[in-house]
Amino acid sequence: MKAINNKTLLVEESLYTTANGYIGVRGNFEEGYKSDFEAIKGTYINGFYDCHAISYPENAYGFPVVGETMVQVTDIQNMDFIIDDEKFSMDQGHYKLLSRDLDLNSGENIRSLEWISSKGHAFTFKFSRMAHFTHLQALIFKVEITSHNYSGPIHFRSYVDHNLQKRKDTEDPRVQTEHIAPIEWVCSDIDDQRVSMLSRTKKNAQHMNLFCQHNISGKWTKAPLLLTFETTLEIGPNQSLEIEKYGVYTLENRQDDYLNFGLDQIKQVVSKGYLGLVEEQRQYLKKFWNHCHIEIFEQETLTNAIKYSQFQLLSACGKDGRSQVSAKGLTGAGYEGHYFWDTEIYVLPFLTLSAPELARKILRYRFNTLEEAKKRSLKLGHSRGAKIPWRTISGIECSSYFPAGTAQYHINADVAYAYIQYYFMTKDHAMMAEFGYEVLFETALLWLEVGHYCNDEFCIDSVTGPDEYTAIVNNNYYTNSMAKYHLYWTWYFYEKFGSHKYSHDLVLEMKRASEKMRLPYDEKLNIHKQDDQFLAKKIWDFDNTKKSQYPLLLNFHPLTIYRHQVLKQADTVLAHFLLDESNFEIMKESYRYYEKITTHDSSLSPCVYGMMACKINQLDKAYDYFMKSVYLDIDNLHGNTQDGLHIANAGGTYMGMVCGFGGLRINHEGVSLEPKLPKAWKGYSFRFMTQGITIKVTLKENLIIETTKPVRLKVYGRWYEIKDVMEVARNEEN
Amino acid sequence: MKAINNKTLLVEESLYTTANGYIGVRGNFEEGYKSDFEAIKGTYINGFYDCHAISYPENAYGFPVVGETMVQVTDIQNMDFIIDDEKFSMDQGHYKLLSRDLDLNSGENIRSLEWISSKGHAFTFKFSRMAHFTHLQALIFKVEITSHNYSGPIHFRSYVDHNLQKRKDTEDPRVQTEHIAPIEWVCSDIDDQRVSMLSRTKKNAQHMNLFCQHNISGKWTKAPLLLTFETTLEIGPNQSLEIEKYGVYTLENRQDDYLNFGLDQIKQVVSKGYLGLVEEQRQYLKKFWNHCHIEIFEQETLTNAIKYSQFQLLSACGKDGRSQVSAKGLTGAGYEGHYFWDTEIYVLPFLTLSAPELARKILRYRFNTLEEAKKRSLKLGHSRGAKIPWRTISGIECSSYFPAGTAQYHINADVAYAYIQYYFMTKDHAMMAEFGYEVLFETALLWLEVGHYCNDEFCIDSVTGPDEYTAIVNNNYYTNSMAKYHLYWTWYFYEKFGSHKYSHDLVLEMKRASEKMRLPYDEKLNIHKQDDQFLAKKIWDFDNTKKSQYPLLLNFHPLTIYRHQVLKQADTVLAHFLLDESNFEIMKESYRYYEKITTHDSSLSPCVYGMMACKINQLDKAYDYFMKSVYLDIDNLHGNTQDGLHIANAGGTYMGMVCGFGGLRINHEGVSLEPKLPKAWKGYSFRFMTQGITIKVTLKENLIIETTKPVRLKVYGRWYEIKDVMEVARNEEN
Repeated sequence: MKAINNKTLLVEESLYTTANGYIGVRGNFEEGYKSDFEAIKGTYINGFYDCHAISYPENAYGFPVVGETMVQVTDIQNMDFIIDDEKFSMDQGHYKLLSRDLDLNSGENIRSLEWISSKGHAFTFKFSRMAHFTHLQALIFKVEITSHNYSGPIHFRSYVDHNLQKRKDTEDPRVQTEHIAPIEWVCSDIDDQRVSMLSRTKKNAQHMNLFCQHNISGKWTKAPLLLTFETTLEIGPNQSLEIEKYGVYTLENRQDDYLNFGLDQIKQVVSKGYLGLVEEQRQYLKKFWNHCHIEIFEQETLTNAIKYSQFQLLSACGKDGRSQVSAKGLTGAGYEGHYFWDTEIYVLPFLTLSAPELARKILRYRFNTLEEAKKRSLKLGHSRGAKIPWRTISGIECSSYFPAGTAQYHINADVAYAYIQYYFMTKDHAMMAEFGYEVLFETALLWLEVGHYCNDEFCIDSVTGPDEYTAIVNNNYYTNSMAKYHLYWTWYFYEKFGSHKYSHDLVLEMKRASEKMRLPYDEKLNIHKQDDQFLAKKIWDFDNTKKSQYPLLLNFHPLTIYRHQVLKQADTVLAHFLLDESNFEIMKESYRYYEKITTHDSSLSPCVYGMMACKINQLDKAYDYFMKSVYLDIDNLHGNTQDGLHIANAGGTYMGMVCGFGGLRINHEGVSLEPKLPKAWKGYSFRFMTQGITIKVTLKENLIIETTKPVRLKVYGRWYEIKDVMEVARNEEN
Repeated sequence: MKAINNKTLLVEESLYTTANGYIGVRGNFEEGYKSDFEAIKGTYINGFYDCHAISYPENAYGFPVVGETMVQVTDIQNMDFIIDDEKFSMDQGHYKLLSRDLDLNSGENIRSLEWISSKGHAFTFKFSRMAHFTHLQALIFKVEITSHNYSGPIHFRSYVDHNLQKRKDTEDPRVQTEHIAPIEWVCSDIDDQRVSMLSRTKKNAQHMNLFCQHNISGKWTKAPLLLTFETTLEIGPNQSLEIEKYGVYTLENRQDDYLNFGLDQIKQVVSKGYLGLVEEQRQYLKKFWNHCHIEIFEQETLTNAIKYSQFQLLSACGKDGRSQVSAKGLTGAGYEGHYFWDTEIYVLPFLTLSAPELARKILRYRFNTLEEAKKRSLKLGHSRGAKIPWRTISGIECSSYFPAGTAQYHINADVAYAYIQYYFMTKDHAMMAEFGYEVLFETALLWLEVGHYCNDEFCIDSVTGPDEYTAIVNNNYYTNSMAKYHLYWTWYFYEKFGSHKYSHDLVLEMKRASEKMRLPYDEKLNIHKQDDQFLAKKIWDFDNTKKSQYPLLLNFHPLTIYRHQVLKQADTVLAHFLLDESNFEIMKESYRYYEKITTHDSSLSPCVYGMMACKINQLDKAYDYFMKSVYLDIDNLHGNTQDGLHIANAGGTYMGMVCGFGGLRINHEGVSLEPKLPKAWKGYSFRFMTQGITIKVTLKENLIIETTKPVRLKVYGRWYEIKDVMEVARNEEN
């Protein structure tokens, strides 16, 4: 274990977040830090937000006027241990961290340390915690204290604390702390060993109830904003004590009868106890890993790092059908807890391939918020259709910088893409019938509004693509090619499934727009142009840009950036990855051209370039990108992990493996694979699911595919019917 | 006189503003309005501002963080008249406005009314006021009271009032009242009949001193924020009383030794008295009108309306070399009292042609603020050059919406254009040598920074032209053609005058960029394209846009507007007017094309279309546009005259006459004229100055040109040496 310093601890708070997709608590220490250390304390509930007014120095019509921010909720981490009149603390005596670990099979965050008080009393403390995957509303803490030489009382205090700190201000536009205000306390109640605290969001007055209880008896006392539990325990040399603490958080607008539901849950978790709950969680995770485990042979550290990123995806993903996946998951308040296109393009591939029942719940979110998206479309001046908000919690547009917000119309196609890919993978007709087609159709309608014909081509003007270093352009290749896909399949599903709810004429218009879609292409370079005029711009002067001037967005005015050929992140290359739509030579040339001018200032970028490097057989390059993606947060490569993990990048790590090295693609014909092995590795295996079947792909000297049921797969360009296992030669020159 | 209603009074407050370019007071009533009427009270000093922080819901690098707002200063308008225990007021007795007039030859605002108190005492009140053109710091008020049947005392109270009201909030982005906070009171002092009040701006602590005195004796009393003068006068039937009130406003950062300077000024104006001051002002204005008077024969109302707009230009224009011309002049706080490109493109032509000594003072402002413009250029990411701020008071960029602010790089060329035109008209070498060339050069340098070569053409990407309904485009024709002019003349003057301060290589680079400038052109339509991609966009659906949906900016999201071919205001057509650079057929076709898609949602638009209609011999159309421009404020055609007059439009009215019907153009060869007569008129005359010579142009059956000294002019395409008078036949088919 490295020496303790504040910077490391702040980053570790994010890395050791305990979350289950409903609730998350950052890895703060139960006993606190040194008095001069900063902590970013936070317990968050996915989709639990407060509103605030957005005001603009120069307003314009249609700018969003209401913002939403994920709130901090009541903290139950804090515990004090007073031993022989001395409070156990990092500041006192001799304090040594022994280990800190996230058990990916149990979902426990475990921290062990040795402490010798200034009076010489020696102890081992082991703190464990879980955000439970089957009791989603529960946070569970356990402390094991072992005395080495002390005999006598330990005075234990444990808190339910509503004195929520506000994160210090920062100018980084990616953090936006301004509106992160805690919720307000309403009342507390003590019922023997169990307490409850009711609070509510300040502006939109949504209530949250917290129940808290321990596995030991003691006395609760009330103070404003604070509930304190106290008891005195006896310990002797080489004896151990175990204290468990349970919290259950329920929401007025989330669970039916949330107070009684919470009461029932706290009773259940208390009666199961920590051991019972861990066992339940192990079962849950065993099943989970069974569908998605990835192994890099003879590379335990890397295998664990990949597994860690998958666990973070599971921890970030809303599981109650009422929440989605925020940019930082539940590991921090960065980006205000908003949902972006990250979910559909970077996170859903993992869920679709590994946990389709969770994918379905996430997909439903855009349906639940479709009415807001329709309203937004009208507000923008369109006469119909739905415009998915660029960033939101409740479904309203919260983006206050439209050139890199509302202008990203591609999010409509991104959402549709996730639905279509999910459908191809699962054949879940019911999803399409129940809500999927409605989302596809309404979002596709918007393209007919925003586009128009010019020289017999369907053109889409004044939009911004994924690359935010270029804004408000005409015929962004990514947007147009994704819209083409979106429009085509909306027509196709109409014809296939029928849907008397909608007009046939409209879907025929969609088909025509798809066929006539303008896809800017440059003959000389044999690449797709990022937009109509992109290649006419000046190339950024990379030679004269200092390292300290990256990310460019923090060092140059947007106009200066927009004026140049320079990418924040994959754009055309992302379309090539997602759609696999162009010929190999064009994709290769595009890759070469755009890679040179991409800064990767966005964490959404390296994984895409990694996957496409596999596609064009540049495996060394792919390996480098992949490693950057795997270790982005673990090694804090962007320097901002303290503000929360980059969840989309975690999805990118997964895709880098399965879609990159594994070459997995999904289309209407099914799944295709082209596994390739980078030089640095001896082999690997990964798993995925399709239509209820789990498939394990192992690549060593040969390629071995195992399946739980007969399945049809395209491997290295050829279709196979696989009964249970198939072995073919590795073929990397395909 | 129309019946009094609040809406009319608010509009008249703007129309009857009393201002001299240094100080202005809105036309509020000395005795107040009815108790339930709203007033926009305001006394403003040009360039006297306070700062405020600008905060953005989503910040980015280089966004301005400090805003500036012209402040309201201490009010000295208020006066009470108590007669037989009844206060003279609109609410009491019988109140009848007889006339309200602005005397354009004396600069007096005069208001007469009859009042019969509820007790039957009948009076005539005549209120006069001036903002003096030779004592710039002075506001002078006079009241004449004539009693018809009353005999007895009149109790008179007069105020120096610092209880400044804040204008009610509005959502109109063109008004922006949020930051309009009054300055704060510091102290008051009574020195027998003269009082002073010191106040200062809250944030940047700049002091203002006010002296006030009457022509009669009375007693001053102090209260916080208020000084009250009281006296009792005797009047008899058919007798009159005259009360004069003088105020002198001086500024710490404007006049040397501002307190003593103010004291000297108040003594001077008091000793001259109202009559003396009026006489002085008459002389000033006589000289002024002598150089610029316009007459439409047998159309007195129209002639006066034109004269009114010229008077407003004079009233708006800073005369102390330290202030410029704000968008609303001193008639209201709209646009925060900021200076825009309006000055150089819409106001300076008038000054250059009518009052070149004032033009020179205004031109100097950009030199005084050049250091700030250089800093801004670096901040934006350029390595050199100066970037003129889009809106400012002190010289810093205050625009907080960059797509229609900072992105309007054309302002650099607009400023240069005004310098170059002024030089051609005056041959003022000294101006060029002293400061003009430095401004030309530094602003021209920026084009080398922002532009680049693509296919051997000099291209300027990611800028916004004058038309704010299209933003962040490549090769805006207006910007490029103006930059071409700017770069060419910067090279030319270097070669002509030499300037060892600057590198010859750089001006040769400027010449090359000018020669190679990309000027987008569409062969099929034979027009210049507004920008590279403008013609590929969808044309706005005018047929389905309701009247109530204009101006579009208040009813559609910017992206929706940007996506369409629709203009807020003249853009390519403005370049054609200013530069007279293209062939006649192209200008005609451009006019036809763009006029159809222009909303004229900006008041800067109709005058330009009017002038170019003259150029292409559509005189009926020109007449319609001209009349819209003349009556825009007088008839409140945009519905927002209450927030202040449209000063740029007043300049447009002048140009509509002289450059429109008169066909006046200025280039390096001199002045050319092509006077044309619209059907509705019998004839007209106008005057202008060049190199100290005053020229009068009269158009009736023939064209008569009179000059005070021999002059060379191009008339209807042919050069003439005119000694004193010349008569040629009217030629409208040139």
